[in-house]
Amino acid sequence: MTLIKTFSAGDEIVGFYLLKSADVKQTNTTPPKDYFDFVFMDQSGEIGGKLWDVSAVDKETYFPMMLVKIQGLVQLYKEKPQLKIMRIRKAEDEDGVALADFIRSAPIQPVDLLYVIKQTISSIQDAEIKAIVEYIHARAEDKLMHYPAAKGIHHAYYAGLAYHIVRMLELGEFIIKQRPFLQPDLIRAGIILHDIAKTEEMNAELGVATDYSLTGRLLGHISIASNWIVEAAIQLGIGTSNLNIVALQHLILSHHNLGEWGSPVQPQLPEAVALHYIDQLDAKLQAVEDAIDITPESEEWTAPVRAVEYKQIYLMKRKENGG
Amino acid sequence: MTLIKTFSAGDEIVGFYLLKSADVKQTNTTPPKDYFDFVFMDQSGEIGGKLWDVSAVDKETYFPMMLVKIQGLVQLYKEKPQLKIMRIRKAEDEDGVALADFIRSAPIQPVDLLYVIKQTISSIQDAEIKAIVEYIHARAEDKLMHYPAAKGIHHAYYAGLAYHIVRMLELGEFIIKQRPFLQPDLIRAGIILHDIAKTEEMNAELGVATDYSLTGRLLGHISIASNWIVEAAIQLGIGTSNLNIVALQHLILSHHNLGEWGSPVQPQLPEAVALHYIDQLDAKLQAVEDAIDITPESEEWTAPVRAVEYKQIYLMKRKENGG
Amino acid sequence: MTLIKTFSAGDEIVGFYLLKSADVKQTNTTPPKDYFDFVFMDQSGEIGGKLWDVSAVDKETYFPMMLVKIQGLVQLYKEKPQLKIMRIRKAEDEDGVALADFIRSAPIQPVDLLYVIKQTISSIQDAEIKAIVEYIHARAEDKLMHYPAAKGIHHAYYAGLAYHIVRMLELGEFIIKQRPFLQPDLIRAGIILHDIAKTEEMNAELGVATDYSLTGRLLGHISIASNWIVEAAIQLGIGTSNLNIVALQHLILSHHNLGEWGSPVQPQLPEAVALHYIDQLDAKLQAVEDAIDITPESEEWTAPVRAVEYKQIYLMKRKENGG
Amino acid sequence: MTLIKTFSAGDEIVGFYLLKSADVKQTNTTPPKDYFDFVFMDQSGEIGGKLWDVSAVDKETYFPMMLVKIQGLVQLYKEKPQLKIMRIRKAEDEDGVALADFIRSAPIQPVDLLYVIKQTISSIQDAEIKAIVEYIHARAEDKLMHYPAAKGIHHAYYAGLAYHIVRMLELGEFIIKQRPFLQPDLIRAGIILHDIAKTEEMNAELGVATDYSLTGRLLGHISIASNWIVEAAIQLGIGTSNLNIVALQHLILSHHNLGEWGSPVQPQLPEAVALHYIDQLDAKLQAVEDAIDITPESEEWTAPVRAVEYKQIYLMKRKENGG
Amino acid sequence: MTLIKTFSAGDEIVGFYLLKSADVKQTNTTPPKDYFDFVFMDQSGEIGGKLWDVSAVDKETYFPMMLVKIQGLVQLYKEKPQLKIMRIRKAEDEDGVALADFIRSAPIQPVDLLYVIKQTISSIQDAEIKAIVEYIHARAEDKLMHYPAAKGIHHAYYAGLAYHIVRMLELGEFIIKQRPFLQPDLIRAGIILHDIAKTEEMNAELGVATDYSLTGRLLGHISIASNWIVEAAIQLGIGTSNLNIVALQHLILSHHNLGEWGSPVQPQLPEAVALHYIDQLDAKLQAVEDAIDITPESEEWTAPVRAVEYKQIYLMKRKENGG
Amino acid sequence: MTLIKTFSAGDEIVGFYLLKSADVKQTNTTPPKDYFDFVFMDQSGEIGGKLWDVSAVDKETYFPMMLVKIQGLVQLYKEKPQLKIMRIRKAEDEDGVALADFIRSAPIQPVDLLYVIKQTISSIQDAEIKAIVEYIHARAEDKLMHYPAAKGIHHAYYAGLAYHIVRMLELGEFIIKQRPFLQPDLIRAGIILHDIAKTEEMNAELGVATDYSLTGRLLGHISIASNWIVEAAIQLGIGTSNLNIVALQHLILSHHNLGEWGSPVQPQLPEAVALHYIDQLDAKLQAVEDAIDITPESEEWTAPVRAVEYKQIYLMKRKENGG
Repeated sequence: MTLIKTFSAGDEIVGFYLLKSADVKQTNTTPPKDYFDFVFMDQSGEIGGKLWDVSAVDKETYFPMMLVKIQGLVQLYKEKPQLKIMRIRKAEDEDGVALADFIRSAPIQPVDLLYVIKQTISSIQDAEIKAIVEYIHARAEDKLMHYPAAKGIHHAYYAGLAYHIVRMLELGEFIIKQRPFLQPDLIRAGIILHDIAKTEEMNAELGVATDYSLTGRLLGHISIASNWIVEAAIQLGIGTSNLNIVALQHLILSHHNLGEWGSPVQPQLPEAVALHYIDQLDAKLQAVEDAIDITPESEEWTAPVRAVEYKQIYLMKRKENGG
Repeated sequence: MTLIKTFSAGDEIVGFYLLKSADVKQTNTTPPKDYFDFVFMDQSGEIGGKLWDVSAVDKETYFPMMLVKIQGLVQLYKEKPQLKIMRIRKAEDEDGVALADFIRSAPIQPVDLLYVIKQTISSIQDAEIKAIVEYIHARAEDKLMHYPAAKGIHHAYYAGLAYHIVRMLELGEFIIKQRPFLQPDLIRAGIILHDIAKTEEMNAELGVATDYSLTGRLLGHISIASNWIVEAAIQLGIGTSNLNIVALQHLILSHHNLGEWGSPVQPQLPEAVALHYIDQLDAKLQAVEDAIDITPESEEWTAPVRAVEYKQIYLMKRKENGG
Repeated sequence: MTLIKTFSAGDEIVGFYLLKSADVKQTNTTPPKDYFDFVFMDQSGEIGGKLWDVSAVDKETYFPMMLVKIQGLVQLYKEKPQLKIMRIRKAEDEDGVALADFIRSAPIQPVDLLYVIKQTISSIQDAEIKAIVEYIHARAEDKLMHYPAAKGIHHAYYAGLAYHIVRMLELGEFIIKQRPFLQPDLIRAGIILHDIAKTEEMNAELGVATDYSLTGRLLGHISIASNWIVEAAIQLGIGTSNLNIVALQHLILSHHNLGEWGSPVQPQLPEAVALHYIDQLDAKLQAVEDAIDITPESEEWTAPVRAVEYKQIYLMKRKENGG
Repeated sequence: MTLIKTFSAGDEIVGFYLLKSADVKQTNTTPPKDYFDFVFMDQSGEIGGKLWDVSAVDKETYFPMMLVKIQGLVQLYKEKPQLKIMRIRKAEDEDGVALADFIRSAPIQPVDLLYVIKQTISSIQDAEIKAIVEYIHARAEDKLMHYPAAKGIHHAYYAGLAYHIVRMLELGEFIIKQRPFLQPDLIRAGIILHDIAKTEEMNAELGVATDYSLTGRLLGHISIASNWIVEAAIQLGIGTSNLNIVALQHLILSHHNLGEWGSPVQPQLPEAVALHYIDQLDAKLQAVEDAIDITPESEEWTAPVRAVEYKQIYLMKRKENGG
Repeated sequence: MTLIKTFSAGDEIVGFYLLKSADVKQTNTTPPKDYFDFVFMDQSGEIGGKLWDVSAVDKETYFPMMLVKIQGLVQLYKEKPQLKIMRIRKAEDEDGVALADFIRSAPIQPVDLLYVIKQTISSIQDAEIKAIVEYIHARAEDKLMHYPAAKGIHHAYYAGLAYHIVRMLELGEFIIKQRPFLQPDLIRAGIILHDIAKTEEMNAELGVATDYSLTGRLLGHISIASNWIVEAAIQLGIGTSNLNIVALQHLILSHHNLGEWGSPVQPQLPEAVALHYIDQLDAKLQAVEDAIDITPESEEWTAPVRAVEYKQIYLMKRKENGG
Repeated sequence: MTLIKTFSAGDEIVGFYLLKSADVKQTNTTPPKDYFDFVFMDQSGEIGGKLWDVSAVDKETYFPMMLVKIQGLVQLYKEKPQLKIMRIRKAEDEDGVALADFIRSAPIQPVDLLYVIKQTISSIQDAEIKAIVEYIHARAEDKLMHYPAAKGIHHAYYAGLAYHIVRMLELGEFIIKQRPFLQPDLIRAGIILHDIAKTEEMNAELGVATDYSLTGRLLGHISIASNWIVEAAIQLGIGTSNLNIVALQHLILSHHNLGEWGSPVQPQLPEAVALHYIDQLDAKLQAVEDAIDITPESEEWTAPVRAVEYKQIYLMKRKENGG
């Protein structure tokens, strides 16, 4: 199957792709006619497409998140490639294609990501902190198997949230060794919990966060995670004014660093300072790496990357002897 | 007793005052000598004072928050009045002076303020909301009898927090009638709870917030109040994802309106919008009124008022026929 | 007549509506054909509509602010409802429909709003202040009968400006009673005058501010109102350096509070502080209430509300026992 | 007479200087003794000085803005030179010294500055604009003879305001020739009027702005000048909605360019854009030039200059062939 | 030839124009048809145009920056004029039209601009500064003959950069005379060098900056010019820590004044302060003048001008006797 | 020797300390007497001290950066400990104390830090990049042996700059392994060069940056490092428009990320993004660690830490089982 990322104008394409969206629109003709405005995706990227002369049956057949087989022509529209669809049909069981093959995923299997997280929890030595983290992890575990880390800004793909956590844990373990004055338990717990309530803040399927939940909009993931810590403390019989509980809440509440970025308090524990900058380093570099991954080979610059103030990143060719 | 607010240069003063602070300092002479750098207060204001030639006994005698009788002379120092103390002694029981007479207080008795708050709680119709507010109010009730609303910016006096709540409730009841689309239960509950965790965020005695507690510094009063709602919900058997609970948390979390003012989410319920602006209107006007109250009669402008961007307020004389 | 707010996809509509705009556009066909791109409104909201196959006569027939009778079909276009017009004709006298029934209006009759304003003026006790307010009110009275308070951000409807003033006066009377240190004359005069020069800053008809006047753009309503006070003072033989005049100007000039919001000076009279926050409370709550009013019954969130930083407001259903 | 700017540590000074301030303070000794904390000035700069052992007669003898003859020793105190006064007496008539010789002044005589301004007014061709400018100039003329342009930020000396206007007029005449699309009348009128109400905003004597007037604080010089234009228009029988009047007001109101710098509207006439940048260029360069003038010869950097964000300016030595 | 600026709806146009862009697009019809979406320009402005029914030959014939002869009809589309093309052909040699006649240019010939710049260089008295400026000027001279000063914000036309330099030099010479404390060599050198590296930062042809170069994006014109000074110093055998070199670099680095405007250091030489404000005054006034030049006669307001915060400028009619 | 960090009020101290500053001041007595206002330091911290009754010989004896033996009494002054000096003498050779023992230093020997840096340079594979880094390193090597990384904000001690580089290199090596899409040569070169021109920007001795150099103030370390790259390229015969040169300059210029933090361009290479966040993570955590190191054992909070917005950091006690 040809990857969408490699399509170029003039190509005729035949293959299976995932329908990301399927809107019926109308031409400006008299009388106006219906046509389909599609977006197709695979694990390498996305492309728009149009199907003219849509029948009533068609309109009842094609819906988002459905696998289809198409025959189409790649054309340029406003300087961007777009498919003119000539034939389309739904994928059948006998076609042997699986939806999971068409979505963008973290480069490590979810089960392996979860294994790292669980191992890290088991390495926490303070019994209270470990119990709190276990309680909250158990609550979110199913969603961690597939949730993205954000709607778009970084790690926006299948298991992206768990991947972000695991990458931060790698960095966290390095920092713990480099700077022994930091408390390992707080670094580990802070990394695992910092974004975990995104599983309640957002609604997501197949690695795509479609929208925010009501609770997510009214409270935000930072306050939801803070709530979960209180709840865990009460259920586990730990007092809510216990310093471990306060410290865990502080790590979560302060991890965006500034009020204008959503943190009601600023970092005032060494581990809270560390957590913020570990999060930044991972999120920004991943956003850059992801942007590069979906940049067509022919381009020298990525599209503007939201995580770095919408700057474009230059793809300096690696030299023979340089790296 | 002459009120401090009325002292003017050249006056000789005899009377009882409250020692707000009492620092032993040293002159720059050779050899240096100890002297007392005092701040005296009464319900009308504060004034600095110096006692030269301090004995070892004196240093063991005078401490903050003690009532003393003094004889002194009002002098100008850096354009501000200051007392040169000639005689000083501790107040005795037989002097018949009470500490409570020397501190600044809300103009309504604490017991009456608490009565209004309790009556308002009893008027809440939704059983869940009422139960949550009762639970949290019970926890903070003792401190509401005397806590100020802030360290300095507004309502910084005995029972200032309860006074702020009651004034906001008056305004809230007006707004509820003026705009029937608002839900009275949320307005009332939001007003009572919005700053209630200041009783845990700050340490205070006699209406003066001396400093912030550890929990206060690491979490802030907004997140502490949010914690209390979760705790109340669990203890009362109400689910934490119950919409009433989420709405109450949203009111608290958003009442500072913007991230840079400490709110992790912005108002998205009509009652949350109302709560923020009711709070603003009351806090700003009270700060102005308080600044005017402690401005000496001879001045045309108040000192800079922190709550209104450190602007000074002009004391335009009320005309006979103007109000 | 079916209210526009209640239209849903698939409905066939027959009825009278007001043409808010009527643009002739061209299809992308060869040769291109003319069609009408309409916006219809009634007191409940607005909807776009298209009339295909437009004749030369049609083009000379339909213009904005005209009442028409239409037969049309509600379709979805870019997820929003839109009318496909099948028949259209101008309303005739014998149809018995009145333009005033199709525009959005303040919920209180203009004559009643003006009555409240005039009564308030007559309650001002200081003769100079009363004379200034009367002078300026007389100048703007005709426009106060119908002007909106803004182009879009709040009170953007027939007599919206007078409604905003009256609502603020209600709140002002409450505050005057709650805080006797405020001068009632200044509060009342400030409220009546604060936005009154919007009647010169904007051009408006039927409650819709279509654009800004030349003077409005070059000076702004704050400076125009300030000019009017000078002019009134001169015409009434009151010196322009009279403190009442300076105070009234200060109230107007400072009522946006900060330089970046358009105020050249910041509030430095107690009444100026009050005026700003009374204005805020009324404007923000009205913007929220108006946004709710035009939100279709089926929606849980309003459209983004510009007055509250483009946040959407959640329409939490009122409970049986809660409100 | 030795200029203050040239004093260096160890010098013994005898001469006449102007007392800028004369505060009686007390030593920290027991008992405390009175001493005088003086500031002396001449046209080259300022220096502090102390007179120990002050008699009761001394305290009734020395006051600000008095000329005195002193004998003193230059010492270093906190790295800055300061005078230890050994002898002091008031200047007598027979000493033949004049106060005007000791204050900092614009480098051009006030009478010559006013002449330029009046000549410029007479060159304005539009009769209405000329009449307005004449009216306002007449009102402020006496104060223009001596007022500074600001309390401290730039042109803070005798006739500094008139000097600022004249320098801007020179620049304005150049720009008028360089860019014929600008209307000379508006440029000339705008420059003359832009800061003219500082004569009412501030109280000043001998080129020193001591404080702001009540009207100055409540309205600011921009709004006062705007008032004067309205007043002039009415007195001269020109309608206030006359475009010339609106344009003149726009020039004044917008000359600070942005709301946060005090302008309620932003420049929207070409001449308003020009006026703002002519004002900036003159004010910033003058502030730099003034800072250099009072920098002792021995220094390589000026003190921080408020007008350029408190940056210090480097005094690069002029080369033989370079300047 | 009719100037584009004077086209009005209904006109039939025949003449030569320059094709600024020529995009092939498709109609929404079934099947879609290709059409040309053109932009035509001449020295007075630009206009869009559409050519329906495009042949395969057409698509290989018309490209940007080509001169064409057209016959077309001016129609209104979204309230703006647009050409419906009826006939089009390429211009031939025998048509006698030259590309240079169709582009917008500085009002002074490039050769004359360059002459002024060279004369100014020859007037620099310090040998080192002169040598540096000559070296860099020589490098950029060819591009100075035609480069614009910016992509769009100001002086965006043929030789706009040289024109900006020359205009600033005129102003600089005035300021040098007005304020003798400034070093003429630094003012002249600073003006000539301040934007000169835009010739490397941008790619431009025919006065239109099409995009930024790779070096331009990664370093910016300020740092490139700073590099050139280092390079010149080394090639000319002047030490890079020579104060003249440091001062020239400082002038370039600081000329945007603030970090958020791209300057890594703020002005700390008097000439650096002057350079920034001379640049501002020229750039802002030119942007206003240019916006006025392309505003159709019928309009009272320019389009929003980016250089003055997107404000529109009002075209107040010059009075007989006023300008 | 007792460490300064452990002094408490009432202690009598005898030992050797380093004089950080030694100012002669005068008492306010009549006549005023000279006294010494000292600051003493050792590797654990600093303390002020006063020597009363200073002789003429004393004034010629004690100067900053001299080792002295003192006998003194620890007293509290404004709630901070301060020494009252009873005896003082210069340290002699036979006292066997070395200045290096009294200054704060990086925890790793400078020679070892330099070794790591050189090893890293030798691991760079691209010959051009390696040559540039070697050239610049050679220039700064001597100063790298002892320079601090900043005047105060972070790594402000002996060899602090080299220590900062080495710590960042450790983190850089980790990131290179974790994210293979990054070019190791650019990461290594960027880290070594990013702050290296601080050795020219600041004047420092014994690990204390006393002030900024003239070049440092006029250009800043970012532009100086950029200059050095140009110079190295020219001296090494590498073209300045070579992509490696441009990339290295981009890394340096952009490493402060935003214009308001001093970067004239923003990161647009993946390695530039990485460099900024590696720098942040190291600088912030080191600032926190350093603040903790000098916090007396008795304190629960550090002093406000400038690098983290002047927040204080809480010293949560490490638990037995927690890390």
